[in-house]
Amino acid sequence: MSSTLQTKTSSLDGELPNSRRVYVEGEQDGVRVPFREIAQTPTRNFDGTLIENPSVRVYDTSGPWGDPSADCEVTEGLQTLRREWILSRGDVEEYEGRERRPIDDGYLTFDAANRARVKDVGKLEDFPSLKRAPLRAKSGACVTQLHYARRGIITPEMEFIAIRENLGRAAAIESNDDRSSILHQHRGQSFGGALPQYVTPEFVREEVARGRAIIPANINHPESEPMIIGRNFLVKINANIGNSAVASSIEEEVDKMRWSIRCGSDTVMDLSTGKNIHATREWIIRNSPVPIGTVPIYQALEKVGGKAEDLTWEIFRDTLIEQAEQGVDYFTIHAGVRLPYVPLTAKRTTGIVSRGGSIMAKWCLAHHEESFLYTHFREICEIMAAYDVSFSLGDGLRPGSIADANDEAQFAELETLGELTKIAWEYDCQVMIEGPGHVPMHLIKENMDKQLETCHEAPFYTLGPLTTDIAPGYDHITSAIGAAMIGWFGTAMLCYVTPKEHLGLPNKKDVKDGVIAYKLAAHAADLAKGHPGAQYRDNALSKARFEFRWEDQFNLSLDPEVAREYHDETLPQEGAKLAHFCSMCGPHFCSMKITQDVREYAAQKEIEEAAALSVGMKEKAEEFVAAGGEVYSKAIS
Amino acid sequence: MSSTLQTKTSSLDGELPNSRRVYVEGEQDGVRVPFREIAQTPTRNFDGTLIENPSVRVYDTSGPWGDPSADCEVTEGLQTLRREWILSRGDVEEYEGRERRPIDDGYLTFDAANRARVKDVGKLEDFPSLKRAPLRAKSGACVTQLHYARRGIITPEMEFIAIRENLGRAAAIESNDDRSSILHQHRGQSFGGALPQYVTPEFVREEVARGRAIIPANINHPESEPMIIGRNFLVKINANIGNSAVASSIEEEVDKMRWSIRCGSDTVMDLSTGKNIHATREWIIRNSPVPIGTVPIYQALEKVGGKAEDLTWEIFRDTLIEQAEQGVDYFTIHAGVRLPYVPLTAKRTTGIVSRGGSIMAKWCLAHHEESFLYTHFREICEIMAAYDVSFSLGDGLRPGSIADANDEAQFAELETLGELTKIAWEYDCQVMIEGPGHVPMHLIKENMDKQLETCHEAPFYTLGPLTTDIAPGYDHITSAIGAAMIGWFGTAMLCYVTPKEHLGLPNKKDVKDGVIAYKLAAHAADLAKGHPGAQYRDNALSKARFEFRWEDQFNLSLDPEVAREYHDETLPQEGAKLAHFCSMCGPHFCSMKITQDVREYAAQKEIEEAAALSVGMKEKAEEFVAAGGEVYSKAIS
Repeated sequence: MSSTLQTKTSSLDGELPNSRRVYVEGEQDGVRVPFREIAQTPTRNFDGTLIENPSVRVYDTSGPWGDPSADCEVTEGLQTLRREWILSRGDVEEYEGRERRPIDDGYLTFDAANRARVKDVGKLEDFPSLKRAPLRAKSGACVTQLHYARRGIITPEMEFIAIRENLGRAAAIESNDDRSSILHQHRGQSFGGALPQYVTPEFVREEVARGRAIIPANINHPESEPMIIGRNFLVKINANIGNSAVASSIEEEVDKMRWSIRCGSDTVMDLSTGKNIHATREWIIRNSPVPIGTVPIYQALEKVGGKAEDLTWEIFRDTLIEQAEQGVDYFTIHAGVRLPYVPLTAKRTTGIVSRGGSIMAKWCLAHHEESFLYTHFREICEIMAAYDVSFSLGDGLRPGSIADANDEAQFAELETLGELTKIAWEYDCQVMIEGPGHVPMHLIKENMDKQLETCHEAPFYTLGPLTTDIAPGYDHITSAIGAAMIGWFGTAMLCYVTPKEHLGLPNKKDVKDGVIAYKLAAHAADLAKGHPGAQYRDNALSKARFEFRWEDQFNLSLDPEVAREYHDETLPQEGAKLAHFCSMCGPHFCSMKITQDVREYAAQKEIEEAAALSVGMKEKAEEFVAAGGEVYSKAIS
Repeated sequence: MSSTLQTKTSSLDGELPNSRRVYVEGEQDGVRVPFREIAQTPTRNFDGTLIENPSVRVYDTSGPWGDPSADCEVTEGLQTLRREWILSRGDVEEYEGRERRPIDDGYLTFDAANRARVKDVGKLEDFPSLKRAPLRAKSGACVTQLHYARRGIITPEMEFIAIRENLGRAAAIESNDDRSSILHQHRGQSFGGALPQYVTPEFVREEVARGRAIIPANINHPESEPMIIGRNFLVKINANIGNSAVASSIEEEVDKMRWSIRCGSDTVMDLSTGKNIHATREWIIRNSPVPIGTVPIYQALEKVGGKAEDLTWEIFRDTLIEQAEQGVDYFTIHAGVRLPYVPLTAKRTTGIVSRGGSIMAKWCLAHHEESFLYTHFREICEIMAAYDVSFSLGDGLRPGSIADANDEAQFAELETLGELTKIAWEYDCQVMIEGPGHVPMHLIKENMDKQLETCHEAPFYTLGPLTTDIAPGYDHITSAIGAAMIGWFGTAMLCYVTPKEHLGLPNKKDVKDGVIAYKLAAHAADLAKGHPGAQYRDNALSKARFEFRWEDQFNLSLDPEVAREYHDETLPQEGAKLAHFCSMCGPHFCSMKITQDVREYAAQKEIEEAAALSVGMKEKAEEFVAAGGEVYSKAIS
């Protein structure tokens, strides 16, 4: 191993402050759902009494890396949570698998591959530990979650997800109009969504069965923890990582994956190009508790030396099997880029900006044939059904600029994606649909509406969208705006955009900035949709803020380290975090403090709102003044 | 002067890359509107021919600081652009003005004030150079832009604004469906707005006359360049600066003001508390080309030692005159915090979070009287009309958490703000209305709709709103989401939120991050509303991006320095900025390059879209392959 690769649970994964890992067990064997529980300090009333504040349980994507007792080791890979579930269904077989070839990593010989890797990244070589043979569906069997769901089977995966989506709650959080209650939640607006007050395993099954949600869960990725992508569930986010021909290494990519899931990414796409694609992916999958997605055409292109016109169905098919055996959970397939649509892009401002889309467009033009992804789509379905790889039907013609939003090419492709969805469903394949891109705010809803209609409510998975083109360097923000909105409208998963979008490859800080921007956008969408319980964390954090429980405010935030760091820049003293004031106003002048006085006053006097306005006020006013004009009180010790 | 204060045009204001200051002259004397013009490099076609790309003209808030020939000096203050316009109207008089007192800066003697300043910030003292006596309306006269507008007078300020809002265009940019045209613009959706294709001075006058837009322009701030706040104009942004009792100094605040306007802030609010409020404000106003807003109750509170219940109408009135004479362009006045509304906040999660609102609430409760801001509102109007200070009617009861959004207290206050708007209009005072705060996405539109209805279309000026509470450290993003949306719905100005919100005082980087986040949010709103010409910059930037004109992409962005820096992190070589590829894909694999091939191919063959799909394709396919499967071509040298 290279000295810079973080091999074990480490600061990379370190526990977040005041948090502990808890598990909620389900009824089926091995269903044990991880959460992070953030402890809070008590509220100190003005009479000195203390009132406990409950811990806040949050969704946790960090897997065993986030469990200090798990003792993970990168070279060993993670424990295989789902292995028993998969085997016990009795519909899979081990087999020898495809023979690995040096070209899988872009080399002519294995020696060349290993020499290059040792040279580039110290001693890092192929992932050393996988002893398993790959699994596939037995002949005649189908192993997809959709297949089971349609047959009425509630898999352990589905039960796991139900517990996870409820955040471990034992009962529903009702809409509640008492704004001072921690359980208060605004009624949402879900645009035809059907969010239940409480997610049951049966509800998960139903949503999967009707194609409205997917559970990306390749049978060769038993390390993954089940999660669901669908508009009646929590909005999910994806982080893209991957090396390229000009930058980055395997170890950096494994670190980025772990970093992404620590910050809250629900899936990770490995978009590596250039050399070492197979090896990089192996390291990532074996260590990933979240589903991994890829764009197989990228690797296929490397196998033909980067010449799109030399791609063939056979090479592509071989790549699908290679990746399915490794355990990739969803494939982006740009099968909607049909020959007749390519010329529709010629008058665009930014033509075809999807890499996969442009590869296929080039192939189509060079051969003057329909793309092999389209003509061989049923064979692709058969492969994906045999491993339960989910489709992410790629939007190869998505707009790359505000100007090109919602044009004929984009919507023509969407129609085809709708047709392909129906075909994939014939094979019990799980499907989601990729979406734009660059779209001004007022055209975002049209994307969602058309997608729901055209693609029969298959989950939508969008990149942003970016709401303006003029802020390179800040496209995590231009796109978080669009992402929050389209998430509210019904998009099930948001693919992050980092500050480096359009400019360079993201580093670790960029990955974090992208993930946090998308976590908050997804959460804003959950609030607006009215996902039951979504507001609980907001309520808890705001209550902590209002009560000057600084540590709790930091700990409940999406990024406790940054919240604390920013606070300490202005007031670094430890005592300041116990003070009943903040740097914005100083000790003599704090609006929150004054409001506390107002409330205390109201409580002490036991006057009702109505009475407060009636007679006898003069006397009370004098009492109030006498009781203390001073608003600053001692810090809690 | 302290050695750290940037006194002259400097790197703080330095020219942005490839930009030059231009001026467009109007018909009235002295109307000379500044723009920044960003030059572009030519497009290089594949046959080697060059096609020039036009310069892109952008709105410029930096004033004389952004004009390298202006030779500004902080100790002298800026030139007085509007002085002649104001005097020539013949309705103002010079007078001696209010006598300055040490308590204005929070000291008992002037000596103490100067000693404290010298100690804190080197030699910085009172602003040394203002020799003018203050102006006010002659007895019986009214000097507000609303007054002139209602009488059919098109002031130089209005003409200046018309030119500015058109970005110097001589003609309208029509909605244009050709997406490859730089003039293409999507039709917007403006929710009942009435954006003209071209802004005339008469249109500006009409909008001001009907109270739907304001021109904050105190007659004692002749240094300011006219700008307009109204929903049928470009969406504006405000940056808050100001020292507090526990941090910051005068020089930092002047620097922050210059930094804000360089990044694009349309107005600046000086929210200083603690000591040196008067002195700080003088330095800021004398050097600010953008309108300055304040919250006078903050200074009034300092004058009574921070005890809200000791505030009196006389002290407040004195503070209004003090600030009006200095040249403050708009005052936040929390006159809507009425006694009956205070108890409505008692059951909130976060009570009253507005500083001004909580001061007034405390005063009301202590005295059990209606607030003096409400009972003396007509006298306030008389003062503000005499100097043309615009009202920013404060939302003292705005929600401070998602839980408290859109509650009874908030909307009760809004009703009162609507009543006060009508009273202010009786005095020809200009009015805008402040809005929230923390609001989940699905409740944002209700805020805008109610404001328009209740406040008779007076411009709305909102803080964010933040769309979730759970991301302290990232509230520039949680709020940019809400800001972009409410801007689209009709909000005229967006008050920025920095990453330090809730945590500490913003430093220079935070100010920039806040301003850029809000510039992009405001621009996203302009695009969605369909502001004519808004899309031009997006089109130009996207065209540059698509054509691998890296320098142009950087230069056209909101933050050229950061765009370049991020690019160079991955590919620092100068040649990389001339290359037909980027770090995401590397030289052999670039979607934009492939699309260019597609387009070139279509152009070369002169085939129509239809023909491309018809017979004889085999031959053409072979030609294409023969012409070069290689997608990478040499960098432009």
